[in-house]
Amino acid sequence: DAEINGSDFDLASIYVSDAQYNRNIYFDTSPQAVRLYLRYNHWLPQVLLYVFILVDLSLALFEEPAVFALPTWATMLVELLCLIVFTIRLIHYAKVIPRDKFWKDPKNICIIVILGLTMVDMIIYGALKASNCRAVRWSRVLRPLLLVNVTEGRQLRRAFRSIRNALPQIFYVFLLFMFSLLIFSLMALKLLGKRGLKTIDGAPYFTNYLEIVFDLYVLVTTANSPDVMMPAYNASTGFAIFFILYILINTYIFMSVFLAVVYNNYKKYLKEEVRQLVRAKRHKMVRAFAVLQEQREEGGEPVVSQANWNQLVRLVQPDLSNAHRELLWSVSDDTNQGCIGKVAFVQLADLLNIEVITLKSRPHPLQGVCPAFYLSAPSRLLCQLVQHRAFVIVYDLIILVNAVFIGLDEENPLISNSEWVFLALYLLEILLKLYVFEPRAFFSRHSFWNWFDTIIVVAALIATIINSAMKSSGDYTSRQILDIVFILRVLRLIRVVDSIKRFRTIINTLIRIGPAILTFGQLIIVVYYIFAMVGMEIFKGKVKFYEADSSDPAKAYCGNPSLKGTPFAQLNYCKNNFNDVVSSFVLLVELTVVNQCSGFTLVTHVSARIYFVLFHIVVPPFITIIVTIRPQLHIFVAFVLEAFFVEYSVEKSDLQTSLEKKIEELELAVAQEKLEDNLVNAMETIDSDQGTGQSANSKPGLMFKIASKRYRTVDALLQRMFEADLDPEDFAETDDPAAPTSGNFSNPAFSSA
Amino acid sequence: DAEINGSDFDLASIYVSDAQYNRNIYFDTSPQAVRLYLRYNHWLPQVLLYVFILVDLSLALFEEPAVFALPTWATMLVELLCLIVFTIRLIHYAKVIPRDKFWKDPKNICIIVILGLTMVDMIIYGALKASNCRAVRWSRVLRPLLLVNVTEGRQLRRAFRSIRNALPQIFYVFLLFMFSLLIFSLMALKLLGKRGLKTIDGAPYFTNYLEIVFDLYVLVTTANSPDVMMPAYNASTGFAIFFILYILINTYIFMSVFLAVVYNNYKKYLKEEVRQLVRAKRHKMVRAFAVLQEQREEGGEPVVSQANWNQLVRLVQPDLSNAHRELLWSVSDDTNQGCIGKVAFVQLADLLNIEVITLKSRPHPLQGVCPAFYLSAPSRLLCQLVQHRAFVIVYDLIILVNAVFIGLDEENPLISNSEWVFLALYLLEILLKLYVFEPRAFFSRHSFWNWFDTIIVVAALIATIINSAMKSSGDYTSRQILDIVFILRVLRLIRVVDSIKRFRTIINTLIRIGPAILTFGQLIIVVYYIFAMVGMEIFKGKVKFYEADSSDPAKAYCGNPSLKGTPFAQLNYCKNNFNDVVSSFVLLVELTVVNQCSGFTLVTHVSARIYFVLFHIVVPPFITIIVTIRPQLHIFVAFVLEAFFVEYSVEKSDLQTSLEKKIEELELAVAQEKLEDNLVNAMETIDSDQGTGQSANSKPGLMFKIASKRYRTVDALLQRMFEADLDPEDFAETDDPAAPTSGNFSNPAFSSA
Repeated sequence: DAEINGSDFDLASIYVSDAQYNRNIYFDTSPQAVRLYLRYNHWLPQVLLYVFILVDLSLALFEEPAVFALPTWATMLVELLCLIVFTIRLIHYAKVIPRDKFWKDPKNICIIVILGLTMVDMIIYGALKASNCRAVRWSRVLRPLLLVNVTEGRQLRRAFRSIRNALPQIFYVFLLFMFSLLIFSLMALKLLGKRGLKTIDGAPYFTNYLEIVFDLYVLVTTANSPDVMMPAYNASTGFAIFFILYILINTYIFMSVFLAVVYNNYKKYLKEEVRQLVRAKRHKMVRAFAVLQEQREEGGEPVVSQANWNQLVRLVQPDLSNAHRELLWSVSDDTNQGCIGKVAFVQLADLLNIEVITLKSRPHPLQGVCPAFYLSAPSRLLCQLVQHRAFVIVYDLIILVNAVFIGLDEENPLISNSEWVFLALYLLEILLKLYVFEPRAFFSRHSFWNWFDTIIVVAALIATIINSAMKSSGDYTSRQILDIVFILRVLRLIRVVDSIKRFRTIINTLIRIGPAILTFGQLIIVVYYIFAMVGMEIFKGKVKFYEADSSDPAKAYCGNPSLKGTPFAQLNYCKNNFNDVVSSFVLLVELTVVNQCSGFTLVTHVSARIYFVLFHIVVPPFITIIVTIRPQLHIFVAFVLEAFFVEYSVEKSDLQTSLEKKIEELELAVAQEKLEDNLVNAMETIDSDQGTGQSANSKPGLMFKIASKRYRTVDALLQRMFEADLDPEDFAETDDPAAPTSGNFSNPAFSSA
Repeated sequence: DAEINGSDFDLASIYVSDAQYNRNIYFDTSPQAVRLYLRYNHWLPQVLLYVFILVDLSLALFEEPAVFALPTWATMLVELLCLIVFTIRLIHYAKVIPRDKFWKDPKNICIIVILGLTMVDMIIYGALKASNCRAVRWSRVLRPLLLVNVTEGRQLRRAFRSIRNALPQIFYVFLLFMFSLLIFSLMALKLLGKRGLKTIDGAPYFTNYLEIVFDLYVLVTTANSPDVMMPAYNASTGFAIFFILYILINTYIFMSVFLAVVYNNYKKYLKEEVRQLVRAKRHKMVRAFAVLQEQREEGGEPVVSQANWNQLVRLVQPDLSNAHRELLWSVSDDTNQGCIGKVAFVQLADLLNIEVITLKSRPHPLQGVCPAFYLSAPSRLLCQLVQHRAFVIVYDLIILVNAVFIGLDEENPLISNSEWVFLALYLLEILLKLYVFEPRAFFSRHSFWNWFDTIIVVAALIATIINSAMKSSGDYTSRQILDIVFILRVLRLIRVVDSIKRFRTIINTLIRIGPAILTFGQLIIVVYYIFAMVGMEIFKGKVKFYEADSSDPAKAYCGNPSLKGTPFAQLNYCKNNFNDVVSSFVLLVELTVVNQCSGFTLVTHVSARIYFVLFHIVVPPFITIIVTIRPQLHIFVAFVLEAFFVEYSVEKSDLQTSLEKKIEELELAVAQEKLEDNLVNAMETIDSDQGTGQSANSKPGLMFKIASKRYRTVDALLQRMFEADLDPEDFAETDDPAAPTSGNFSNPAFSSA
């Protein structure tokens, strides 16, 4: 026991926390490097790093073409500061891991290259600006890549990698699609080119091969349907067959196959990544075990004592309650031996990732202050009333009536005054609930709807009061305040969803797969940012937007004579431009929905189409092709689909089941209904600081509930998704294939580790 | 043995063939009913039935509003004839199955109701027409339902059933989507309604709640993006957030969840259907076994002798070659006992469904006629040249050069004459191949590309000759002939695909899942037909199309003053109308791609939107909602995806593997490369009429190849799709759960069956 000192615990806790969060950093194991590594993983530098990346990315708002113009020296100074922060972070990282590992990692090389290029670009740009030459800040395109590489964006990098690996397979389908496109275009040229047909603008129809290829490509995206077909269809009904066949083959059948191949490959590589992840996790836990292990008896298997285990868990997760830790120990040490073997120890990382809600039963504070009143018959009756099903139904009806009132004209005084009534009713509901339920339980971390209700109602109350105060003090009404009031009122209606069980299931599932969806959100931001930077350089100032009250004659053609009389100007699309980063982002979202580019090829050159086709091909699934029905979102859809199935199904992982069994065994389970009503009426208890496996039994006031389907990390969700597909060997020992995977004390070969 | 007579064989063969094709008809087992049933399943009445359904459906071409007008009495006479045919078929069916079964089947009731309603409608319509009143042939909507119910459209009915069963689950997600739509609309009304904004037409923007709901619904289909957002976006950039949020939540996240739930449920019910199918198949085979079984030894297991088995298979599939039948027997009777038990017998239905290509090795006919010449050194060299890889590459290059020439202007005499050169080259290729390969092998049933090549080249030759003949005899050139020539020329280029292995894999996969896709094609036809009939009644004649040379001023507004100055008329969409069934179908395809209805609500009433929204919701996945990215095709995409995975993967079913093993054991396997080159150079042999398991061994000239991934029936593909998911019990005995599922002679409990 004496051999295990403080730095050993530091080392073991790093291994465990790396396993828990799936960090794959090969740090030095010298005590000095371990301390540095602990500092590297501290939340403060990580948050700071994210802040500086955000600052770096948002510089685009202030740089030419700017939303809020700042002098060049100011933005460049801020960027220099960001670069220094990134460099410091990188140096810190270099000190943590062995030198050869550092230079072998392409991630680090990538960061160094980006930092170098950005510096070079800034110097050139500054010099050119100083000599009044035209200069382009091309290194801005590289900024989002820092988001991918500097941060611990494992999910992001993994998504990139999976997409890259799936590329070759996908490329063949893409080629076949291109072949089909070219063949159809050739046929269209031969059939329609010589008929002297005209498009709606009077231009010759289908006479230029490249134009045809582009038009038919756009038809796959359905953006120019049915316009592209009308001249031919008007000439002869028979040509409709050509276009219907084209849409059937290229838009529907082909793109389905495309989706199939993309999805299949993407999933395959993601599965391989997850398999490696599980192996790496196990490996780290085995190392942690090797640090803490001790020999209980001569020739016996090495074990970790409960005291050491407790100290380790306290280091890894200081915020874990003692009772929760004891529960985890009793799951690991199933047979009450006071120590656990390697197999049980290795589970720790996964056990820590299962979110267990600890409910402390406290009496209502009013009961403490004035028990005679709170426990009186009328008070008890009130409590029963509020907890009754009818209470929920009454309030659902009130919300529905409120919805009708919101829809009516709010300038009618009756309607606008009724708002006060509804606000009072909602406030009353919250106060009643606070009277009945213990406030800390009511506002616990997992009571999403309680928080939602209270914030919305209180905010609406404040906004409404400000609004009427402004109204009564002079006739001035702030449009902004009024907008906020309206939004809050409408948001309140969402509460109805929570009352219908099926709806709640769907919404909860969505909330749970949120983090996974956010990963793809980041991916989209990276691609959008790059395209916005490039688009701004190419198209900035080509299309101008004039305010509604402007009388400039150029307003009719967006300030660009090339757009005179074009649909782009006629439909008033002038604000769809690349003149600043916000407009660019809005425009890119529009392009994601329907890819239209006619306006921009007119103001620049036909070849500008390349930009739009590229965007159409590249967006979210990144380089993953996909020219489909709504191509850019296929991988996204596929992922949501997969994650949704896993979440929607009732199955639980083995580990969760065993944890739940233990909770039930210890009679600490919270009945489902009880938890949902936040009904905690038992007496308060004090956490004991130390205890054996049995001690938890003596705490009837403390209850556990597994938030069974909530995952701390996206990795855990991914692992669940592929659990059925993974080989059992991935979970087993890699260094000892004969070892059984369940039960403690059964691995005699491990003393050598 | 003597107990088994002819009618027993008839009965057993019906059971087997019902199992093979998954027919689920509970026919009487009396010899008379069996004979009627055999006639019912004959191909001639079945084909006739399909012809009459086709005639019935195509009547829409000749009825008001007609493409080719026929007098009412003519179409009604034809329809009457069709009804009589359907009635006869139904009576035949009623004679085959027990009376109580007939009246319990909703399918039959459905047919009787449709026939009755159609008769009533025809009488009313005739009477009204005779008295010159306005009459509507409403029963035309019912016609496609006959396609579903009269024919043995099992796949179609199964798809309908699966969709119907999945409805309740899907309904909840749809409700939640509607709730979200209503909430967003309310917010839009409150935020934008009072700002006095105008749309591009000068109409007030977002002031009417129902209009907003409809506009935002259309935004989900992305059809009116970005127009619907522009007025708000032009007023303030901040409103872009509202629309982006809306698109993100409703178009992307929500619809992904939608797809997930629809797909999950659809798959679940389809799986259940397939499970029942497998059970029913097994049950039928057990009955067939019970008819033919005999007791070899006292107390032993009942078996079927080889002679009886042979006679049965000959009855079930008369076109099966003797060698093929012997192969199947040797797979069933693995241990050469001369008889097989129940377990081996039950496999027969699946064995018959595995397509085995029998290659008979024949010498080239020229070798027979003139062996000295054909086997001479130059002739052999030529054969080697043609079979060389370079030959394929040379011809691929020729095709590419040809593609460039096609793209060039064909009025240039050099170009138009070059066509003769290319034609000659292609003809030469075919002749050379015919010289090298045995013609019957070259034109075998499975040589898709050989057939394709020959037909295209010969047709192009004929068309080109006709074309130049017409050209030289006077300057008249038929546009039709020229079009055909062009199409054939371009189609020839597709051949390149066959040379690249990866492309071939993809194309072959597509061809293989074709039948399954066609099932969904039928489903779409049913829905389109119903919508076309309704649409024609509502919208016929409201929008008129004028030929290009017409000088009628009404041409500018499609003959309907309500359309004056609308985008519909400006974009020349007049031919998109419901004036006849062909136009309706083309328009419905356009609506499937992009659902636009502005023109039609103008010429009738705003409530006409209901028709278009309904179409958007209902199409292919039928009632299956789905208001998605490209909603109508989701189930289709999902199905293609699933089928594609199964086909694309290399795994084979167990039965196929055992059949292949047997073929290899008997040394009759064709090497993969050999088959692909159609290289059959061995000597011809004569089929022996009878033989033992070993007799196949003495036929070195006969080779087998499993067309391993081709399925005779869609059911077989479905069974494959869910093979991994089905319980082993589904394949096992239902009446004897303890029976092993593999190996012969192992089921002692079966003598009681």
